[in-house]
Amino acid sequence: MDVEAIKKLLEEVASGDKSTDEAFSELRDIPFADFLGVAKHDGHRAFRNGFQETMLCEGKRLEHIVGIVEGLIKGNKNILGTRVDEAVGQAISQRFPKADVDPVSRTFRIIQRPIEPISGKLAVLCAGTADIPVAEEARRTAEFYGVEAHRHYDVGVAGIHRLLDCLDDVRGADVAIVVAGMEGALPSVFGGLLSIPIVAVPTSVGYGASFKGIAALLGMLSSCSEGITVVNIDNGFGAACAALRVLRHLPR
Amino acid sequence: MDVEAIKKLLEEVASGDKSTDEAFSELRDIPFADFLGVAKHDGHRAFRNGFQETMLCEGKRLEHIVGIVEGLIKGNKNILGTRVDEAVGQAISQRFPKADVDPVSRTFRIIQRPIEPISGKLAVLCAGTADIPVAEEARRTAEFYGVEAHRHYDVGVAGIHRLLDCLDDVRGADVAIVVAGMEGALPSVFGGLLSIPIVAVPTSVGYGASFKGIAALLGMLSSCSEGITVVNIDNGFGAACAALRVLRHLPR
Amino acid sequence: MDVEAIKKLLEEVASGDKSTDEAFSELRDIPFADFLGVAKHDGHRAFRNGFQETMLCEGKRLEHIVGIVEGLIKGNKNILGTRVDEAVGQAISQRFPKADVDPVSRTFRIIQRPIEPISGKLAVLCAGTADIPVAEEARRTAEFYGVEAHRHYDVGVAGIHRLLDCLDDVRGADVAIVVAGMEGALPSVFGGLLSIPIVAVPTSVGYGASFKGIAALLGMLSSCSEGITVVNIDNGFGAACAALRVLRHLPR
Amino acid sequence: MDVEAIKKLLEEVASGDKSTDEAFSELRDIPFADFLGVAKHDGHRAFRNGFQETMLCEGKRLEHIVGIVEGLIKGNKNILGTRVDEAVGQAISQRFPKADVDPVSRTFRIIQRPIEPISGKLAVLCAGTADIPVAEEARRTAEFYGVEAHRHYDVGVAGIHRLLDCLDDVRGADVAIVVAGMEGALPSVFGGLLSIPIVAVPTSVGYGASFKGIAALLGMLSSCSEGITVVNIDNGFGAACAALRVLRHLPR
Amino acid sequence: MDVEAIKKLLEEVASGDKSTDEAFSELRDIPFADFLGVAKHDGHRAFRNGFQETMLCEGKRLEHIVGIVEGLIKGNKNILGTRVDEAVGQAISQRFPKADVDPVSRTFRIIQRPIEPISGKLAVLCAGTADIPVAEEARRTAEFYGVEAHRHYDVGVAGIHRLLDCLDDVRGADVAIVVAGMEGALPSVFGGLLSIPIVAVPTSVGYGASFKGIAALLGMLSSCSEGITVVNIDNGFGAACAALRVLRHLPR
Amino acid sequence: MDVEAIKKLLEEVASGDKSTDEAFSELRDIPFADFLGVAKHDGHRAFRNGFQETMLCEGKRLEHIVGIVEGLIKGNKNILGTRVDEAVGQAISQRFPKADVDPVSRTFRIIQRPIEPISGKLAVLCAGTADIPVAEEARRTAEFYGVEAHRHYDVGVAGIHRLLDCLDDVRGADVAIVVAGMEGALPSVFGGLLSIPIVAVPTSVGYGASFKGIAALLGMLSSCSEGITVVNIDNGFGAACAALRVLRHLPR
Amino acid sequence: MDVEAIKKLLEEVASGDKSTDEAFSELRDIPFADFLGVAKHDGHRAFRNGFQETMLCEGKRLEHIVGIVEGLIKGNKNILGTRVDEAVGQAISQRFPKADVDPVSRTFRIIQRPIEPISGKLAVLCAGTADIPVAEEARRTAEFYGVEAHRHYDVGVAGIHRLLDCLDDVRGADVAIVVAGMEGALPSVFGGLLSIPIVAVPTSVGYGASFKGIAALLGMLSSCSEGITVVNIDNGFGAACAALRVLRHLPR
Amino acid sequence: MDVEAIKKLLEEVASGDKSTDEAFSELRDIPFADFLGVAKHDGHRAFRNGFQETMLCEGKRLEHIVGIVEGLIKGNKNILGTRVDEAVGQAISQRFPKADVDPVSRTFRIIQRPIEPISGKLAVLCAGTADIPVAEEARRTAEFYGVEAHRHYDVGVAGIHRLLDCLDDVRGADVAIVVAGMEGALPSVFGGLLSIPIVAVPTSVGYGASFKGIAALLGMLSSCSEGITVVNIDNGFGAACAALRVLRHLPR
Repeated sequence: MDVEAIKKLLEEVASGDKSTDEAFSELRDIPFADFLGVAKHDGHRAFRNGFQETMLCEGKRLEHIVGIVEGLIKGNKNILGTRVDEAVGQAISQRFPKADVDPVSRTFRIIQRPIEPISGKLAVLCAGTADIPVAEEARRTAEFYGVEAHRHYDVGVAGIHRLLDCLDDVRGADVAIVVAGMEGALPSVFGGLLSIPIVAVPTSVGYGASFKGIAALLGMLSSCSEGITVVNIDNGFGAACAALRVLRHLPR
Repeated sequence: MDVEAIKKLLEEVASGDKSTDEAFSELRDIPFADFLGVAKHDGHRAFRNGFQETMLCEGKRLEHIVGIVEGLIKGNKNILGTRVDEAVGQAISQRFPKADVDPVSRTFRIIQRPIEPISGKLAVLCAGTADIPVAEEARRTAEFYGVEAHRHYDVGVAGIHRLLDCLDDVRGADVAIVVAGMEGALPSVFGGLLSIPIVAVPTSVGYGASFKGIAALLGMLSSCSEGITVVNIDNGFGAACAALRVLRHLPR
Repeated sequence: MDVEAIKKLLEEVASGDKSTDEAFSELRDIPFADFLGVAKHDGHRAFRNGFQETMLCEGKRLEHIVGIVEGLIKGNKNILGTRVDEAVGQAISQRFPKADVDPVSRTFRIIQRPIEPISGKLAVLCAGTADIPVAEEARRTAEFYGVEAHRHYDVGVAGIHRLLDCLDDVRGADVAIVVAGMEGALPSVFGGLLSIPIVAVPTSVGYGASFKGIAALLGMLSSCSEGITVVNIDNGFGAACAALRVLRHLPR
Repeated sequence: MDVEAIKKLLEEVASGDKSTDEAFSELRDIPFADFLGVAKHDGHRAFRNGFQETMLCEGKRLEHIVGIVEGLIKGNKNILGTRVDEAVGQAISQRFPKADVDPVSRTFRIIQRPIEPISGKLAVLCAGTADIPVAEEARRTAEFYGVEAHRHYDVGVAGIHRLLDCLDDVRGADVAIVVAGMEGALPSVFGGLLSIPIVAVPTSVGYGASFKGIAALLGMLSSCSEGITVVNIDNGFGAACAALRVLRHLPR
Repeated sequence: MDVEAIKKLLEEVASGDKSTDEAFSELRDIPFADFLGVAKHDGHRAFRNGFQETMLCEGKRLEHIVGIVEGLIKGNKNILGTRVDEAVGQAISQRFPKADVDPVSRTFRIIQRPIEPISGKLAVLCAGTADIPVAEEARRTAEFYGVEAHRHYDVGVAGIHRLLDCLDDVRGADVAIVVAGMEGALPSVFGGLLSIPIVAVPTSVGYGASFKGIAALLGMLSSCSEGITVVNIDNGFGAACAALRVLRHLPR
Repeated sequence: MDVEAIKKLLEEVASGDKSTDEAFSELRDIPFADFLGVAKHDGHRAFRNGFQETMLCEGKRLEHIVGIVEGLIKGNKNILGTRVDEAVGQAISQRFPKADVDPVSRTFRIIQRPIEPISGKLAVLCAGTADIPVAEEARRTAEFYGVEAHRHYDVGVAGIHRLLDCLDDVRGADVAIVVAGMEGALPSVFGGLLSIPIVAVPTSVGYGASFKGIAALLGMLSSCSEGITVVNIDNGFGAACAALRVLRHLPR
Repeated sequence: MDVEAIKKLLEEVASGDKSTDEAFSELRDIPFADFLGVAKHDGHRAFRNGFQETMLCEGKRLEHIVGIVEGLIKGNKNILGTRVDEAVGQAISQRFPKADVDPVSRTFRIIQRPIEPISGKLAVLCAGTADIPVAEEARRTAEFYGVEAHRHYDVGVAGIHRLLDCLDDVRGADVAIVVAGMEGALPSVFGGLLSIPIVAVPTSVGYGASFKGIAALLGMLSSCSEGITVVNIDNGFGAACAALRVLRHLPR
Repeated sequence: MDVEAIKKLLEEVASGDKSTDEAFSELRDIPFADFLGVAKHDGHRAFRNGFQETMLCEGKRLEHIVGIVEGLIKGNKNILGTRVDEAVGQAISQRFPKADVDPVSRTFRIIQRPIEPISGKLAVLCAGTADIPVAEEARRTAEFYGVEAHRHYDVGVAGIHRLLDCLDDVRGADVAIVVAGMEGALPSVFGGLLSIPIVAVPTSVGYGASFKGIAALLGMLSSCSEGITVVNIDNGFGAACAALRVLRHLPR
């Protein structure tokens, strides 16, 4: 029930077309309806926080994934799935030939409506080649929402010249996503050199005392560089969404 | 060695005032100087990433803190100190009568030059009254860099109406800092309702299984709301810096 | 040895049919027998705490599971197995055609005697579709003991309207089971809105800093809402049993 | 804005006393008002989930605590403060002579209105004498809300006869709070013997590998007894609230 | 109620001095009484597992400690208190002049009845001088129960000759308590050299990655030497009790 | 080099048959030789601490396992392998037809020489059927060294009568191994009831907050029962060795 | 841009062939180029810290591994790959017949240019046979860089004579790598006996409370022996590199 | 008993001045004595691993510290005490006026014999001013053993130019100690730039997710730079000892 509906209801009461009891009964349900619109319509979340409901496939049963995709296709939605393992990827490919399944980023996309581009410049960096899947999840998510990212991959601190090489390009971005595993030092170094918003993504790359990303996560949270923000381990998707929150607020 | 110095050097070579060997010898030292300027001048970090060096007082010996403050005062700098305990606060107050020491946020500031205001709107929210010190650290840091924050304190999820009450004001902000201890659910709820950049700050408020902020930290990192970013436990300062990175990139 | 047996024994002593020595010898074994009845009869646990011994299949060897089921079938018991993986499920199906094996909740049931319904209303809620298996384990367990649950699935806090939609139905329940992974904020929100007993179930849904349910577990334990109780990660079975303890004490 | 206010508004529209535009403007603010009542009135939370806002004093600045108490006294409320350390307790005693400050349970209470008793029987048990403060926090909280608890203290499993001694009394309760530190085995043993709802409270009693309550917490969550629920470490207050949720739903 | 009491009761029934109803009423309480004796008598635990109830003072309120001691003194018991901090120690000394308070082992003892010596040889070893308080807690506990320990202190693996020096003496013991902090390697080395029962006690000595005894605890649990057993961190008392369980089963 | 050898050497020097230089050269190697005997002979470890080197198969490459077994067979040794997975078990069975491979305890044994029985009584208990593999590893290890254990399986605390049923038999043992997963409360209960040495073995049985045996491990280490000792998670082998250390010191 | 290029540039300015503006523009990019040379040439890292980029294969996609190897072969480099699982090893073997794939150390090497030997003596020790893969990774890495290691495997502390046997050989080394799992006590013992640099490597060998190498890691970090240094769990490669840092600085 | 003593003994036997029995009796004690010298003489450890026994004061009782110092003074030893808190420092100063107590590094030294200088160059670096105490502990320890360190303090990665400024000096060192708290990224950056041995020291500087040095520790262990070695958190003493192991093996 939206603004127009409420106004119409009030006019019906004013005109006597509806009793106050009937109106009250309808209004009793407004609180959430008015605030939240027609519940469970995908369009609504986009209206609230700017994101469609995407599908984290990990942990979901295949039959549920397929069912949701079918529903969204009928609704003529664009669809993004993340953390798509090999079995799910193959099932999606076979069932939905239009799906663009990408094994590196472990995502799939089904594009049914043109994507509206968002201006603003996003840089995506990662420390090592093993971090690429997470960086690509970020890049593909940004792309899904209309942003083409500038990539600078394999620029870790052990070879500090590599990151300095890309500094000028990154300095010109509106927001940077910096992906790193192991000790996760890359965002600290960039944070000391750049004034733009930086979203740090720890990855589970490494072994032993890396503890599947904990070393990188704690390092990023403890960074001595001011104003680094952090998302979950391996969460390229979330980093892209955080970057989009910044880019959407830039004037076009 | 700055830009002018390099240009002068080249002109000396062009004019024959300096041999190419002499010039080469001087240039050999440029790499870091050119990139980094005169080392250890506070002004330089501000040039790179927009932040002056502030002073995390915790873990520093009092004599070091006093010495650094004296140096910065001579340099006519504005000074911000964080995590100032009672003993340090009293010493600073006695020694530097101009210092504005705030026991709630555990910060002190010495303002010697006018602060240049930054436009853009920042909202600072916190879940409970025990989270106020961290929220205030964020607010005072933002203020130090020229931003007056809109405060919405004590709006935790156990009384969900309180957070809905402030929704309209927060929705109009350019960036929001959301501070919460215990289970740290507040950023998730706001993240589902708002499209602006959100910096979540877990606090060490709580006991037992809160583990001094770990519960809130993990909860915020695992948030089901898209694009929430997180800083260290109790790190109001860092959250403000992250918000400032966003606000500075907005057009004025 | 029950009350009647003890009285009979005393009468035999009083009548001289049994010597005091014989009687003492029999009485020496009473302590546990009297308290606990005929040991290791399944019926007995039900008598003590209201629950039959169910079978946690995880970690048990298949031959042991089959053996126990055969024994219980002979005893004409109703049987509930939980955490049934695919291999165990298939073996049970093949061997016991009457078994109702449910892959979603990973449970099987063999019903040989009519289930006695318990009055009272149970609501089962979960935050996301990936939490459904745990919610279903709770629902199927409750059903096994005579309670039909009201389901409200996929009502997580990122879309707060969805949970508000189901509020009226849940408010009317006698007890609610609230299942959530990731940051596990759902019980906090419900706990602030409802006065009924709430059993929170953290799930291992999520990745990275969710730490297989630890984030949700800590969040629920640290909840700022009064009187939320928590069971083990993914323990839908235990949540149902906790709810049954409440429902059984309601007057019929 | 409550039900009557909405009806009145509609009647004003029906009667022409208010234009539809004016009415719409007022209704726009209903959603939360209607759902939540007059925000931030203490009475309202009690209306929603049955609990007044109590004051967790730990982590709060003394001036805030005093301010809140003064406000609640003016509102003629009953007041409960928890985790009151010695300094806060003394300050409260001096400032509010009516306050009943209890050093064992670390609570204070100010009773201004008669407490309405709740029927139903609550048992509070603890394993050792060092667990008494947590058990007493539970007992005093229950008392604040109208329930007199039956106490069975120092009944730990190392002397299993002691717990068996109190079994009959506990079996007759409507809900039991079982408090234990160290290995926290007490709820498991009771859970196997009783069919009533059991709220287990791990305490930080113990040292070394007890890890300030983690051993007891994990043990209770992993209990082999069906349907044990758990609250935060040392959270006697929360356990009482959980018990109250059960007791309030019993018929009187 | 003990064996004689039951026999007497039966004889009274046989002789007609007691009706079967009266007898039944008394017997109804036997189950635990018979098994456990007169509840809460200290003597009874000693009867069951050989240990009197000792008093872990840490975490107990001073008034409770004093009260318990007074009760035990009246009962003419020997009394052992452990983890006695300075304040408790002073209070005990002042109030009970007979008390033997030892600041190194943080124990006090009040001996009212002669201690019955136990034969068998106990060796207590520790790795460094900072481990001595824990070793002494073990030694003093053993002494309280009648065993004089052979001490070998400061024999850590960094100076492996020191431990080899005491090898012959230790080899002749019936059981050895081996106390070590930091990496806790001492029990592994002894375990490889000796065939006697070894009780390893990790201590909280060390800093940083010692994690207050966790390093030593994990090391001892993971020992490559066969049959090392471990007690809680800093638990000299428990180690002595474990040793006593061994010594008491030796023939005298 | 043993005592006789040293004496002979000295006599050769005294008689002039050996120069002091030759003697010194031989003596230089004594320290370890004298202390340790002929290095790397399996027989030697047994001489020192009473245990042959057994083979922990987990983590070893199959070719190494086979090689070691072949060597031990040639040496006419009895052989015990633990943590034998299915692949290793099959390989051992095929290659060494005499091997007794037991899938439940995941051990294999090759007996080439008669086992010398040790007197003394060992009880092995476990809480649930899923703990049986660990209990059986203990039992089979004890058997390998000459001790037949008394088994009491599935006697967990949720059905406390079951453990009381076996109390008399266990009370008569010289040492008890108590195996339990989940909350691991069983040793605490037995420790309160029995005076004999108790070796507690936490198992990885359980899920969620059991953390693969950590809950049980911490619970056992924190036990309120005096003198419980603990070995590593799932370490049935180590528990048996600890029990053997006790049994070997009993007089025969 | 190298030294010659800078000199040439200066000469062009001096000769008037290049304006100062043109020259400045070119020099502006020197800082990193001059410091770091031609970026991403493998030869350059070797120039900086002495190590070629080796390939940690774990976590990398096979197609990336193959691509990198092909590039390095074309560049006539020697190639070292670590943490090569079976699938990668087979793929490498088939595609690059010259590759020397070693399943024990899980490494492959492709040698295209003669390895220049480094003088100095390296000892590699490990505690048990299950630690051999890590020790071999260290040995093979050292070999790749020109050092033949002296091996002493299976010398763990449970049989302390074994380690003493190899003491003389190790004492003569310039640096020792000491590899151990479980409690990881071996480096402590060696550290107390030897004055040479010791690099300790914890391994993930062990189970339960070994926590995949954490017990050994913490133990080594907490060692009571002075000056033990530690690398990551299972990081034989890193230990070899640390040893090479020492050996390269020895005079030849 | 040293080499000469053994030779003399043999000569006495050869000359008949000593019987073989007398000689055997003396030699019986050689094994450890010969290997290890006169036990518990400080001089002996220095002989084995090059370090005197220093005194970790933390965790030791003051009377023990004083006693050990007095003993060492009588033995005319040089004495180093570490982790000296304020109370211990004052007591040492008062009692031993010659003691050089340094509150920054929390060490004291009593020099009674001239320190023999060791050649070779040591660089000590730290990231922030709060890390200085740990760096100074390393520097003072090195000085105690004859090495003057080159200091480069406050060169953290947030201002990467600062570390580049000191690069040339550090490159010329024989070994570098790199001290850093928070995310601990400094050793990674240096490790990528330098070929010398690097000992990384994590410090407990930082808060929240730094977890008192765990973030830095894990980061350093997970470093992507080859061959970084790590010591315990805050262990400046151990880092100096590790550096001394390297420096002592350099030719003079």
